[in-house]
Amino acid sequence: MADKVAVLVAGSWGTALASVLANNGHEVMIWTRNEGQAEEINTRHTNSRYLPDVELSSRIAAVTDMSVAAENAKAVIIVAPSAAMRQVCADFKPYYREDMLIVHATKGFETESLKRMSTVIAEELGYPEGRIVVLSGPSHAEEVVRKCPTTVVVASQDERGAQAAQDLFMNSYFRVYTNRDQVGVELAGALKNIIALGAGMSDGLGFGDNAKAALLTRGLAEITRAGIDMGANPLTFAGLAGIGDLVVTATSKHSRNWRAGSLLGQGQPLDQVLSTMGMVVEGIRTTKAAYAISSKLNVQMPITEQLYKVLFEQKDVRSAVEALMGRDPKTEMEVMPLKTWEQWHS
Amino acid sequence: MADKVAVLVAGSWGTALASVLANNGHEVMIWTRNEGQAEEINTRHTNSRYLPDVELSSRIAAVTDMSVAAENAKAVIIVAPSAAMRQVCADFKPYYREDMLIVHATKGFETESLKRMSTVIAEELGYPEGRIVVLSGPSHAEEVVRKCPTTVVVASQDERGAQAAQDLFMNSYFRVYTNRDQVGVELAGALKNIIALGAGMSDGLGFGDNAKAALLTRGLAEITRAGIDMGANPLTFAGLAGIGDLVVTATSKHSRNWRAGSLLGQGQPLDQVLSTMGMVVEGIRTTKAAYAISSKLNVQMPITEQLYKVLFEQKDVRSAVEALMGRDPKTEMEVMPLKTWEQWHS
Repeated sequence: MADKVAVLVAGSWGTALASVLANNGHEVMIWTRNEGQAEEINTRHTNSRYLPDVELSSRIAAVTDMSVAAENAKAVIIVAPSAAMRQVCADFKPYYREDMLIVHATKGFETESLKRMSTVIAEELGYPEGRIVVLSGPSHAEEVVRKCPTTVVVASQDERGAQAAQDLFMNSYFRVYTNRDQVGVELAGALKNIIALGAGMSDGLGFGDNAKAALLTRGLAEITRAGIDMGANPLTFAGLAGIGDLVVTATSKHSRNWRAGSLLGQGQPLDQVLSTMGMVVEGIRTTKAAYAISSKLNVQMPITEQLYKVLFEQKDVRSAVEALMGRDPKTEMEVMPLKTWEQWHS
Repeated sequence: MADKVAVLVAGSWGTALASVLANNGHEVMIWTRNEGQAEEINTRHTNSRYLPDVELSSRIAAVTDMSVAAENAKAVIIVAPSAAMRQVCADFKPYYREDMLIVHATKGFETESLKRMSTVIAEELGYPEGRIVVLSGPSHAEEVVRKCPTTVVVASQDERGAQAAQDLFMNSYFRVYTNRDQVGVELAGALKNIIALGAGMSDGLGFGDNAKAALLTRGLAEITRAGIDMGANPLTFAGLAGIGDLVVTATSKHSRNWRAGSLLGQGQPLDQVLSTMGMVVEGIRTTKAAYAISSKLNVQMPITEQLYKVLFEQKDVRSAVEALMGRDPKTEMEVMPLKTWEQWHS
């Protein structure tokens, strides 16, 4: 069934999701503040700054007026950068309707408040947080627009909302799984950037496959531990939003987090890395956020702690590795309290 | 505390584990049937067929007489190939003592019986299966002998046994975690080879990072599902023996399983792949075993099923991918029955 869908905003991931929706026969309207970009999408059917060498479907239109995008839209897909999320939602507030399906596909926390994206959206729109659908998973935008096989997860406490999103997006190259653990999917998507940074650092130090696998696995264990404390199901971290996305981010040389880590591992100081990269490295912001969270919740996050010290306290990278390898002997399963199990399944 | 430890047999992984033990100050005696190999280890301190360009510690001796290796040994580390495990244990039976710590580090099933390695060892030695310790995790032998940072897990139902193994092996470059889920660690180590084969196939088909991450994650989900049915804790599969080892095997071009899958993905028929590789591809044997297990237990293992059809029923690789992508919509969490939760923690 063809529906009208609004997409906010026209970055690479928003455009890639728009292309999936257009492929499925929906009428897609992307909102952007940038008039030149809107014109390019409408006349040349390209978005060359974000997705070079890709021709977009003529079923995708772009507008700079949010009211036009929202009108009669059955669903809105919000893909604003995490730092812009609150403002985009405030701007959207006059046009959104209770009967719209709200899906977001943004990873990360709000920096100062440490709030998840669903919380920010719910606060600004006055929409029930649990009904928001989050879309996440291992998905380079460039591959999705080229119709390479891809899987993602859509999570909401409202099962019907998740299923509606699954219906909207799923096709022969874009396979969509539902999950009820909205909190876990959001936390996994945000926290995994820390581990990608650490994996880059391990590679930059010239360590091998064993060290990198150790970092990914024990990193997954510690972000899972933090997630449990914030109400997530540990198995969500073993799923597409967790390990799936982590594998893509930590093993791809295109990942900014991996690259920043690699430069740090080679001994470059943080300010030099940041000026070399010339852009935001999400994993660095997230390390700061997660370090604050781990202190607040009193959860052991040894890799996050050592990364924090390397990034913000000039700790030598090799001493950080030694500190990790030299910790007391542990069991692999220092994980969840039994009592939370039933609550995940309620 | 320095102890005498016996290692059976002198392959690359057995030799690498011997080098860790020697580094920790233990007296290590490796048993091998091959007299030339024993002499090389004793006189030249190398094992060049299995670990070229590596000098071994003079604390490692090799013998061809099992009784000499076993005499006064506090522990025995069994690293026979899965196909040879039953015979090696039968040969060892006269020399083993009840007070020895038994650790094995072999991945895979016994082909015909589909039995786990601990079961085979227990049957042959008449030793309580639950007390055997299994050592597993992401660990290329070549990196371990070069002292690259590595983490592994040692699992046994007998916590003291696992801790004794942790004590024996752990040092500044070889970090050892304990786990009580012996069954899960063994199953994860064996079943992950199927997914590595599939990941190679995805790469051989020219698919991208998204497809490979999908395969790893959904592959992990299905081997976890099978594991639960056989009594494992799902979180073990998210640990070092599961996702950790899977990442190393599926992303390393040195992996035989990955390479075989890649050739199959390029369209080579199975017999040609096997003759090109000229050696055993564990993942192919395991796919057959797991397909039999999934039918017997009635567990959904869609990736295993499609791989089986490609390998043994001449199914076209692209049709197999289409079949996977075109399945009915699913939730991410079609996983474990609640009732087993308490039993994992008992």
